[in-house]
Order: sequence, then structure tokens, then C-alpha cells
Amino acid sequence: MVVVMQERASEDQIQHVIATLVEREFDVHRSTGALKTVLGAVGGNRDFDTGLIEVMDGVQQVLRITEPYKLASRTFRPTPTVVSLGAFRIGGDEVIVMAGPCSAETEEQVEEAAATVARSGAKMLRGGAFKPRSSPYSFQGLGEEGLRMLRAACDRHRLELVTEVMDVGQIELVGRYADMLQVGARNMQNYSLLRELGRSRTPILLKRGISATIEEWLLSSEYVLAGGNTDVVLCERGIRTFEPYTRNTLDISAIPVIHKLSHLPVVVDPSHGTGLRDKVAPMARAAVAAGADGLLIEVHPDPDRARSDGAQSMFPEQFERLMAELRIIAPAIGRSICVEPAARRAAVSHA
Amino acid sequence: MVVVMQERASEDQIQHVIATLVEREFDVHRSTGALKTVLGAVGGNRDFDTGLIEVMDGVQQVLRITEPYKLASRTFRPTPTVVSLGAFRIGGDEVIVMAGPCSAETEEQVEEAAATVARSGAKMLRGGAFKPRSSPYSFQGLGEEGLRMLRAACDRHRLELVTEVMDVGQIELVGRYADMLQVGARNMQNYSLLRELGRSRTPILLKRGISATIEEWLLSSEYVLAGGNTDVVLCERGIRTFEPYTRNTLDISAIPVIHKLSHLPVVVDPSHGTGLRDKVAPMARAAVAAGADGLLIEVHPDPDRARSDGAQSMFPEQFERLMAELRIIAPAIGRSICVEPAARRAAVSHA
Amino acid sequence: MVVVMQERASEDQIQHVIATLVEREFDVHRSTGALKTVLGAVGGNRDFDTGLIEVMDGVQQVLRITEPYKLASRTFRPTPTVVSLGAFRIGGDEVIVMAGPCSAETEEQVEEAAATVARSGAKMLRGGAFKPRSSPYSFQGLGEEGLRMLRAACDRHRLELVTEVMDVGQIELVGRYADMLQVGARNMQNYSLLRELGRSRTPILLKRGISATIEEWLLSSEYVLAGGNTDVVLCERGIRTFEPYTRNTLDISAIPVIHKLSHLPVVVDPSHGTGLRDKVAPMARAAVAAGADGLLIEVHPDPDRARSDGAQSMFPEQFERLMAELRIIAPAIGRSICVEPAARRAAVSHA
Amino acid sequence: MVVVMQERASEDQIQHVIATLVEREFDVHRSTGALKTVLGAVGGNRDFDTGLIEVMDGVQQVLRITEPYKLASRTFRPTPTVVSLGAFRIGGDEVIVMAGPCSAETEEQVEEAAATVARSGAKMLRGGAFKPRSSPYSFQGLGEEGLRMLRAACDRHRLELVTEVMDVGQIELVGRYADMLQVGARNMQNYSLLRELGRSRTPILLKRGISATIEEWLLSSEYVLAGGNTDVVLCERGIRTFEPYTRNTLDISAIPVIHKLSHLPVVVDPSHGTGLRDKVAPMARAAVAAGADGLLIEVHPDPDRARSDGAQSMFPEQFERLMAELRIIAPAIGRSICVEPAARRAAVSHA
Repeated sequence: MVVVMQERASEDQIQHVIATLVEREFDVHRSTGALKTVLGAVGGNRDFDTGLIEVMDGVQQVLRITEPYKLASRTFRPTPTVVSLGAFRIGGDEVIVMAGPCSAETEEQVEEAAATVARSGAKMLRGGAFKPRSSPYSFQGLGEEGLRMLRAACDRHRLELVTEVMDVGQIELVGRYADMLQVGARNMQNYSLLRELGRSRTPILLKRGISATIEEWLLSSEYVLAGGNTDVVLCERGIRTFEPYTRNTLDISAIPVIHKLSHLPVVVDPSHGTGLRDKVAPMARAAVAAGADGLLIEVHPDPDRARSDGAQSMFPEQFERLMAELRIIAPAIGRSICVEPAARRAAVSHA
Repeated sequence: MVVVMQERASEDQIQHVIATLVEREFDVHRSTGALKTVLGAVGGNRDFDTGLIEVMDGVQQVLRITEPYKLASRTFRPTPTVVSLGAFRIGGDEVIVMAGPCSAETEEQVEEAAATVARSGAKMLRGGAFKPRSSPYSFQGLGEEGLRMLRAACDRHRLELVTEVMDVGQIELVGRYADMLQVGARNMQNYSLLRELGRSRTPILLKRGISATIEEWLLSSEYVLAGGNTDVVLCERGIRTFEPYTRNTLDISAIPVIHKLSHLPVVVDPSHGTGLRDKVAPMARAAVAAGADGLLIEVHPDPDRARSDGAQSMFPEQFERLMAELRIIAPAIGRSICVEPAARRAAVSHA
Repeated sequence: MVVVMQERASEDQIQHVIATLVEREFDVHRSTGALKTVLGAVGGNRDFDTGLIEVMDGVQQVLRITEPYKLASRTFRPTPTVVSLGAFRIGGDEVIVMAGPCSAETEEQVEEAAATVARSGAKMLRGGAFKPRSSPYSFQGLGEEGLRMLRAACDRHRLELVTEVMDVGQIELVGRYADMLQVGARNMQNYSLLRELGRSRTPILLKRGISATIEEWLLSSEYVLAGGNTDVVLCERGIRTFEPYTRNTLDISAIPVIHKLSHLPVVVDPSHGTGLRDKVAPMARAAVAAGADGLLIEVHPDPDRARSDGAQSMFPEQFERLMAELRIIAPAIGRSICVEPAARRAAVSHA
Repeated sequence: MVVVMQERASEDQIQHVIATLVEREFDVHRSTGALKTVLGAVGGNRDFDTGLIEVMDGVQQVLRITEPYKLASRTFRPTPTVVSLGAFRIGGDEVIVMAGPCSAETEEQVEEAAATVARSGAKMLRGGAFKPRSSPYSFQGLGEEGLRMLRAACDRHRLELVTEVMDVGQIELVGRYADMLQVGARNMQNYSLLRELGRSRTPILLKRGISATIEEWLLSSEYVLAGGNTDVVLCERGIRTFEPYTRNTLDISAIPVIHKLSHLPVVVDPSHGTGLRDKVAPMARAAVAAGADGLLIEVHPDPDRARSDGAQSMFPEQFERLMAELRIIAPAIGRSICVEPAARRAAVSHA
């Protein structure tokens, strides 16, 4: 921490700040300039509230140095984390696509969605069984019956399953069906849930809260990492801004920022990020071009009749066209995307 | 819902929209103008995703009419809800002040804080035993030991206790000690928790999420109300904006907005709303002048040594001065605030 | 400036940063800690882009110390600026109210508005003759004819006039009629205009841009101050947030923040800050309770027929009721507000 | 406009709303439902303030139908506008790159920058001579001397010049040197300037204001179009959000949104959009992948010594690498980008 004293700060005020810091076990270095005194404080408690110094008399500004996250930082681990799932890996050269419906609705709908996803070369099926909805009157998901449908479709099509877990009480149940557990944007700061997922050994997909800073997002990942679960994948899904036209503003720049600050992989969800079907393909292409490690996309066999998120779900043929476009873009940054299913099956048999 | 078709929309496109709405059990009224066709759709499902129509060909704009909350609206209940707690009521003529430390830390600290709070005429003690902290390395609260301290101090000083409950598993425990259960900003959309609190009969203090719209906030209250718990008090505590100087921007205008849209009482937390001790008094005065039904304020006997939120906690003497200022302001809008303790004891004995 | 190097920064990287700073005429002090090296840089150019150091290899963070504004800061001038206008002063013990219609429309409308304003004890008439409108098809004001009407009404009712100037070319004309020149929110960073107003000796009312930080706002005032015009009054009028219910979010906390950072007076415009007539009175009361030096309020003799901003203009009787409420609130913070016209006339005759 | 009355609205209230609308020359259609009355109003004045109805007694909500911009909309002109500049066109199949330094500083710096730009295949030189700076103490540009340097370099390297014009008084001067006039983000709502540029016949590059909605941006373009200048190119350059890590949040989704709402071309400025050099290439790739019609990029022969914006200026070799990456991405969406200089010269000779 660096404490900048006001130009007119008295010696008493300076001494009071120094004494407070020393009491909190900081080592303090003092630089007395012509205009201002600046104090550098090192050591002390990582959990120290710098605001405490900020409100002291004579203090102009307090500048915090140490990033408050540790295990999630590049400083702690300079090489990228690669999360293995079945026969593929998130965070490596291949860009991984996770796709499927917002919610599991019927046996047929799940099967059709899974078939589309597998046929186009995507590697994971996404789909919800427990849905956090802003209105209590909205469809809340099929529960365990939905999980069963999703699992069966994954097994038939050799896909891995990612699905949301909404609270501590659901972890065990959802964990019996899923290959990856998703923490939704609204739960990004549900610390009870994060702490418990730290004890799990299933990979976690951690969505960014709608108004979370990147630092807060990494701090939330720290709750999981600190529990011993190192398989965390971050997911950008749009932040809230003043612009009303799109539901959220997808923060594509979060991709290179995360890659600089952290070793964790980052994927992008353009479906929730825009809320509008015809904006999903452009934003998916943008995410891959900017270096995303994967995509999370809503696809539905019949979006007009979807029970939730129909407006942002792609038609199967739109999704297949997008996959073809992404195969052209990925090599521009030295990556591949979703090799064709045939090639993939061969790869699986040699794994 | 009102659907505005594009000027160049074809008859086929219009018919497709009508058919989709009728299939979803809406009654559709068509107005054909010189330039545009406008469709009015009534009935249908409250849980209908208007985005589904928005993405159809030929549609320019979809305007949603019905507010998605019902039990929380003034339309449903035109007279203000008044929540009774001990010998006083939130939402009536008196402005209720809840004050105390961020966290229970020691027996002495809790006792001193409670004594200050009671002496100044405030009616409720606030204080945390389970703390949601953005870093896993921060102090997380004393747990049940903290609850016990807070309860004992309330009993000694004839105060009611409001304290936070972080997840479903804590409701029973916290409910044994508290008179009012607080849902923190980060949990405003933790629907599992809200649904369970709807089954409780303890009053709920529901904080606004840091980037929640007023509509989303009321929808979250709807989860509690729909469960049968009608004693819900809303708490504005600052929203996230681009301004870095204050931790959040306290949205004072939310007070008159809530009073127009809903019958629920609304209180204001200027401590979290600004994050800076010297901004708490001005914003507390502003909240009362704008018509808030109460205040939630952090006071600590020794803020410089607080284990959390010290920078935004008032010194006891600052708090007492603030209470005196508020007693001048409240009558300007026909309200009283926190009658003197002596008068209050008399009132209690007649209740 | 304080430069924090990464934990793994090499000696070469550190030397390169030092060399760059020295070349830019900074004095550099180096602290080598167990984990990190921290460089303190003083002197150098006030106009130095710290981003330049931020992107250098091995740099973790750059913390800027000196506030980039100087003449507007409390450090430069510890006592509050008081702006004299006619027989009263903005920034002293009295809270000054400026009120009137959005635009001058007709002789009668201006006269009725001015009569209401004067009768209720307000000291200044506000009203536009040149209107910046987001649509080119909206009413753009009456121009000089409007200025003439406003001036005449002020002279009849012993009011001072504040009105907007939109570009450099209008300064001379508007200055012939107005006692105070308003810079609108959209022009807060129109530096050509600000620079020219610095050469004027008419007091300036500088509105905060809709998404301006407080620091940027003070920097814009610096353009005027640096030109030699020291009579600058700041005006908070709402910032843009994600909340759709109010047109803007009025940042009441900007009042105590400005009072801490700067010596300039700050007034509040609750009409533009909320955009809704029934929210104006609560927010005006809040502003005074929080310590505002004045208010800028839209009042219209017949708001339903106003050519602009009718929805946020108060009816005359609403405005008079508000003035009565404010007279109760102001003493809570040791201030008076708009003494009654009779008393005021007496005061004027003794000035 | 659609006016939704409250469920409990009285017949008197409804009649008052109808009368007000009729008086303003609207035709009103009334639908009386079981719960609510809904009024549809057509005709009337495009410049009508819907807020006026919103504040009337008994009104629940007012929904505006007509987009307030007209000439900028796809409805008005269904085919894309293509702006011709020299031998190429913005808005056609080719993605146009404009690059160069933030400011013209010296003859050598401008020459080196122009040589880099031309060599890499970009078509336009960008560079400032008049700089709007948030601090009055910052470098404000070389003025006409800078314009002369930029023009000469363009002539030597067969580039077109885009440069900023800050106020009405500069239009004539800057117009003598530039091929395209840039309106900066801070001036997006400087209506005096926009109106005057509408009378020019030089193409305009209109940057989005830092907190402008897309609708406001299109309305600003309407000022230019309404004056008769149809050669307007929009430029997304980042919006202000709560995220502190990047200077702004580049709104990539604005590209497909603009392409749906308007016929005007849209280019992207990833340099100002991020403020950090190492984020420029990922965001430039993202913009092209999302369908941008062009890019505006800061390149400097020696960024570490730039007088402004050095931290976000690319090194020449970074810029050339980026151009190579973009040539791989553009075909994914059926476009080409900046054909090689040799090929281009050939194309020019045949044009």
C-alpha cells in the first residue's frame, strides 16, 4: 500500500498514520518530498481495509498494491491452466464449443439438440435442469428428470455435459449427471456455494456476474481454487451498461485482459451476452478472433417454441453455418476449432 | 404486449406473428395504419418471453405492458405495507434507524455499540455474524458466537436485531436469534434462499443488488411474498456506476420510485452506499429528506480497529450528531424520527 | 507516480522503466522489497501519460499521485469560493434557488414563471433561448427574442438570469442579457467553449456531463479557471446508469465529494436529474439536506403545454410547497434558504 | 405512442389523456380490456415529449413507437450507404483501415507513420492537429502546421486523410487539408458543429460519445444528414462502464446493431476503445470478425516517446502483423481487407 499525504498534512497526522500501520504489522518506508510525504507500507495483513487509512486526517489518497487474488494470478502460476474433459482439453490450442438448449424440456428436444451439436463438431452439451429465473412465475426447469435426459443424450452422442448448480444442496445430485458444473452469473458471489465447489473435483464453469469487475470475478474463482479444485474455467456473458438495445454488453476485451492477469481459461457466451439471436454469430466470431478458449451457445431445434430464452437460441442451420465460419477464423491466431466429428472419433479412439 | 411491425412488413410476416401469439393463448387486436401495423396482445402467459416475437421477421419493436411483479405492486395493494417489530413499525409515520457494527467482534465491542445505538434513540441493532466477503482470505464473521453476543446486547438495551442470512442452511440458526433477516446485495437473486424465506414468518430486509434495476429488485421481493411472507422491507444500498470516487452511487431517487410502484417500505444504507465515513451523514440526511422509511447505518465504538468496514463506520459521537440533525429534517415531510429513549420506554410500557 | 513492478520483473526491465522516467525529467526513488520493487517518481511533466509506463514489460501497476487539476482543488485554495450575483452570494450560508421554464416560449409564459419564482423567494430565473436537443426535429429555442423576454422579466421581478450558451459564437450575444452563463452537460468537454469562457468575467454554471467522473468535471472547470474567470459554480444533474425508470441517476453524493476535493460551490438540478415531475421535490429536499449550495429547478405556469421538458417541470403550487419544506430542512445543517421576498427586499436595500 | 392506463384509472383520467393527445394532433384509438385500457396514438408531432403523458394521473406506462431518427434508418433507406473516398469505398466488400499517430508531432514522425501505414496496405492516414484534451495543461496539437505535415505525407504515400475538427470555426481550415472530417466522442452532441457539417460536402466520421446510446448516436448523425451531407461513417470507440481495467469497454455488438437499424457504415477504434496497446490487436480482429466496415488504429514510429496516447499506440511491426491476421479473418464473412499495396496500385490505375 502507498499512502499519499496531503500537501498541508501536519507531522502529527503523518505520525498517526504511521502508528496505525505499524500496529497492523506493516513495515513503513517514508519519503518526504518538497510538496508531499509518501508512505510505502509492506507486509501487514492481506485482508486489510485500505479505506481505514483513506479516511484518516491528512491523507489524500491510498493506493493498494498487492492484487487481492493469489492462486488465480499469472504471478502465482505463469503457465496457462488446461482443463481436461473426456478426450479434449479447455485452454489448449483447440477452441472448445459447448452448445445446446437453455433448458431440457422434452426427451425429443434434448435428443435433437444433442444430435445437432455433435454433428457440427461441438464437444459439449449445455442445458439446464434447474433454472434461476428473475420471476417466480417463470418456468423453473425439470429438475432431476431434465438431468437424466441430458446425460442420456450425451452418452448417445459422445458429448460432455455442462449444467448449472444453483445451491449447495444441489451439488451432490447434479454432480452425479454432469461433467462440468456451471455457476450462474447471479451466483458469482454466492460464497457458500463457491466454497463447497472448492471441495469438489468436478471442473467448474464460473460465469461473470452482470456487474462484476474482472478483479471480483477472479476473487470468486479464488474461493474455488483455495478449496483445492484447480479446474476452473471462466465465462464472460455480458455486463450491464446504459445501452438498452442489447440485453447486456458483451465485454470481448475481458478475453485478453484475463489472459494477461490469470492462467485460467476463458470462454464466452454470446447468447446471454446479447439476448438476440441475430447478434449471436457476429459476437461468437468476435470472441474467437479475440482469443477465447471456447464458446457457450444456445441452440434449440425449434426456438419459437422454447420454454425459455427462445429469442436468443440459434436455429440448428444457423449454428452449423457459424461453425464453418469459425473454422476459417481460428487459424488466424494459431488455433483450431472443433475438428470434424469423424476426425474426432479417430482422435478419441487413440486417446 | 404491443407488437409494432416494420413499415415494410409483408402480410405473411404479420400473419406469422399473429399465429404465434394465438398459439401461445393471446387474444390479438390488429390496428392497420397508413404506415405501420400494430398488434395488441392480451391474455397469454405471464411467463412469456417477448424476445421471441422481437426476433421474428418484419417486427420492429415489442413493448411489454404488464409489470412482471404482482404481489409487490401498488396495483395489487394500494395502501402501504407496515411491518411491525416489537413496539414500533416500519412504514408508518416514524422513520426507523437501525445501527451497529459491520460485524460482531467481541463482547465489549457489541455492548458498546448497542449502548450507543440505544442512547441515541435508534430502535434496531444491526451486526453481522456471517459475512459475505469478496476475498476468501478476509474475516468471515464469528458465526453463532456472534449471534449470541448480538442477541444478548439487544435484550439488555431493548433493541430489535437485524442480521444477515447467507444461505438456506443458515435460516433456522439465524432465525433463533434475529428479529429480522437480512438478504445481502450479492444474494438478491439467490432464488433458493428467497423461496425458503417466503416460508418463514420473520420480517425480511431485502437489499438491492449492486446492479439490479428496480424492477428486478421488486421481482426478487415477489419470491418472498409469493411464499406467504408479507413482511418485506426493501433496502437501497448503492448501485455500481462509472464514478470511482465513491464505492457505489447511492440511488436516492429509488425512494420515491419505490413508493410509487410498490406498497413495500424502503430504507437506505448510506454506509455501504458511499463506503466513506464522512459521506454517511450527508447521505443519511438526504435519504430522510427524500422520504425513506428508515436508515441502516454502521457505527463502531472504535472504527480504526474494526475487523471489517472500519472506513465507513461512524464514530459514536458522529452518529449522535446525525440523529439530532435528522430530528430537524423529518418534520419537513410530516414524519418523526426515533423519539428520545425516555419517551420510547414509556411508549413500550403501554404497547 | 508510483510504479509497482511484477514479482518476476528482471533487473533489465526495472532499469528500462527508470531510464524512461528519468528521460521524462522525473526523480526516481527505488524501494526493493522481498517480493517486489516499487519505484516512486516525482517531478516530471504534469501532462505525462502514465499509460506509457503501464504497458512496459515487467510493470504490474502504475498509480498516479498528483491530481491533474490544480486551480479547482482545495489544496490550491483551502477556503470556499463565494460567487457574488447581484445582492446575494452562491457558496455562502444561504442556499440559492434558480428556477423557471426549460425554454422561453411566450411573453406571458415567461412573465408568469418569473412572478412565481420571485413570489416564492427564489433569487434567479433560469430559462433557455438556445436549446441543445438530441433530435434535429425538436424545438430549438427562440434565440435572441427569448433572451429579451427573459431579461425583461428579470428586471421586472428583481431576479438574476442564468441561461445556456451553446458555442463560442453565442458568448457575446448571450452575455449581453445574462447574469450567469450556463454550460450544458453535452458541452462539458467542449474545450473551445470553455477556454473562451475563461476569458469572460461573467459567472459560469458548469453542468456535469452525463457520464463524466468528478475528476473530469473538475478538469473542465480548470479550463475556465485557467483563463482567469474564477466565478465557477458546478451543477450536478444526474449521471447515466443502467436503471431505466429515471432518466438519469442524480448523484447526491457528488455534493459532499466536491466539497471535500474543491473550493467551488455546487448546486443540483433535480429536474433533469430525474426527468419526472413527481420526483423533483424529494430530490430537491435531499440535495439541500446533503449540503448543496443551491438548486436549479424547472417550473412552468402550464407544464402540460410546455414546448420542452413539460414532464419534469413543476406546477407553480408544487414549487411553492417545496420552498416551504426546504425552509424547514436548511437549518438542520446551519443554513438558510431564500428568505421571504419582503425580508429580501429589505436586505437588498441595505446591501 | 401506446399509453397503458393503470388498472384503477378512472374514466375521467382516461378522458383527460385522450383530450391532451387530441389537442396535440394525435389520432387516438382506444382498447378497453378486462383489466386495463390501452390507448394507441398516431400522427401528432414527431417532437412530442412522451414524458408529458407519463406523469399524468392514471397512466401506468407510455411506449414510444416511431424511432426519432428518420434519414439514418434502414426504413428510410434499405440499402447500405457506401462512402467513396479517392479510389476506394467505405461500406462495400472491402474492410478499410485508417491508421496513424494520435497527433502530428514532427515532420519525421508523420512521414515514418505514413510510410508504415501505406506499406501495410491501409488506405487512410489518421492524425490529429487539434486535440481535445481533458486537462488544459496537456499538449493541444500543432494546429495548421500539423495539418500541413499530414497532408504532405498523404500526398507522398497516396493515402486519404481523416482528422478531427473541434468547432465550427475550424471547419473551413481543416477542410482545406482533410479528405474526411472526424467529430470526436466529446463533440457527438455539439449540435452547432453537427449542423454546420451538414452543410459541408466532405465525408464525416462521427464517433460515438462515451455514454451515448445507439439511438442518440444515430440522432446525432441525423443532424448531419438533415443538412444534406449524406456521407456519414459511424465510429464505435468504447463506452464507459464500471470496469476499471480497460479505459472504456469497446461495444463490439454495436456493429451488428447498427447494421440492422441503419444504412450507414460503421468502423471501430480499438485504440481508444481499450487504451492499452496489447489489447488493440485482439479487439481489431474481433471487430472485423463481427462485420465492421473498417478500423481506426493508432500507430506511432516510437510510441514510448509519443506526446499523447503512446500507451495505446502500436509499434509498426505489431501493426503489420495485425494486418496479416486480418487478411485471414475477413474472408470468413465474405469480405476482403486492404489488398497489398502492389495490387492496390494496379487497382487504382484501373479505377
